[in-house]
Amino acid sequence: MKSYREELWFQTESRREYVNITAQVERAIQQSGIQEGMVLVNAMHITASVYINDDEVGLLQDYERFLEQLVPHSADYQHNRTGEDNGDAHIKRQIMGREVVVALTKGALDFGPWEQIFYAEFDGRRRKRVLVKIIGE
Amino acid sequence: MKSYREELWFQTESRREYVNITAQVERAIQQSGIQEGMVLVNAMHITASVYINDDEVGLLQDYERFLEQLVPHSADYQHNRTGEDNGDAHIKRQIMGREVVVALTKGALDFGPWEQIFYAEFDGRRRKRVLVKIIGE
Amino acid sequence: MKSYREELWFQTESRREYVNITAQVERAIQQSGIQEGMVLVNAMHITASVYINDDEVGLLQDYERFLEQLVPHSADYQHNRTGEDNGDAHIKRQIMGREVVVALTKGALDFGPWEQIFYAEFDGRRRKRVLVKIIGE
Repeated sequence: MKSYREELWFQTESRREYVNITAQVERAIQQSGIQEGMVLVNAMHITASVYINDDEVGLLQDYERFLEQLVPHSADYQHNRTGEDNGDAHIKRQIMGREVVVALTKGALDFGPWEQIFYAEFDGRRRKRVLVKIIGE
Repeated sequence: MKSYREELWFQTESRREYVNITAQVERAIQQSGIQEGMVLVNAMHITASVYINDDEVGLLQDYERFLEQLVPHSADYQHNRTGEDNGDAHIKRQIMGREVVVALTKGALDFGPWEQIFYAEFDGRRRKRVLVKIIGE
Repeated sequence: MKSYREELWFQTESRREYVNITAQVERAIQQSGIQEGMVLVNAMHITASVYINDDEVGLLQDYERFLEQLVPHSADYQHNRTGEDNGDAHIKRQIMGREVVVALTKGALDFGPWEQIFYAEFDGRRRKRVLVKIIGE
């Protein structure tokens, strides 16, 4: 069994942002030389998500509106009594998920026609990381 | 390390449907001949989920009601300006999840007493796929 | 490829509880002797979650309030017509997730600075299990 590890770094300009990272994950797979196995892609920070869905600008607006209506940034959170202001981000990240696991087949992401990997930032404007871990042969 | 790949195909009769696919995943495991490892089961389409929970008819109605109240099909979605009408389905799928990873132990799904694997369709009435990828030995 | 399996058992005193299980997962990794691979940690029961986020008391209260407002225990659920009273718990678990998959690097959880693994119980006061499955080398 072979394994490969790489960190992807991000610093978004706004608090919340949705970044398509599919090409970066594909480059990590090529670097790994692994043909068959599984790829784990996870946020290493607890106010961000990695998820798979469509890269369509209207949909990204729908996600933003849905999450902000359900978990408004300006609402009252116990977590913010620590002096932070990201209580909402810890909840938004749970809804969208921490990680994806993708099948690696014949050296490529084994994807359906519209699957794209996104980094969803809910408390950005600072350097944060995503982990890519690949195991297989 | 061995690996195995299989696609399961579905065409639901209604827009939203919850299908127990545990037996199909178990057949894939038998086909693979793998005894110890991990099984990834994921929707290959971005308006459907794979999740694990109880196969109880009332619960499936509760999921349906919860998701439709939170993300109504008939609400206004930016995504639908593309001409599609499935903006809600892209959000419902995020709540229920894209994939499950299940331990494979002694050639079987390593499950608690009530765990069942479901395919949740939120934009059906056309042919769509689920991927089963197994790695191990 | 090596694999390792361990069950963690819990019996919470209250219906809903959030338990940091990171140290128990770390002990399982040490027992396994595996250095590079992936760790799956999943609830074996369908009214509980395993998730990764911050161990901060205010945040745990925020999760509790968010989930109970969105899916109140005392609301009407079809599932409860079976004689059970945990319809809400089956939905809360879907929002928080069944499982986490964590990279195993150099014999340790490959974590960002604040990542902690939690067992979230939504229908406790009885003995329930979490599965730890590790594969790698």
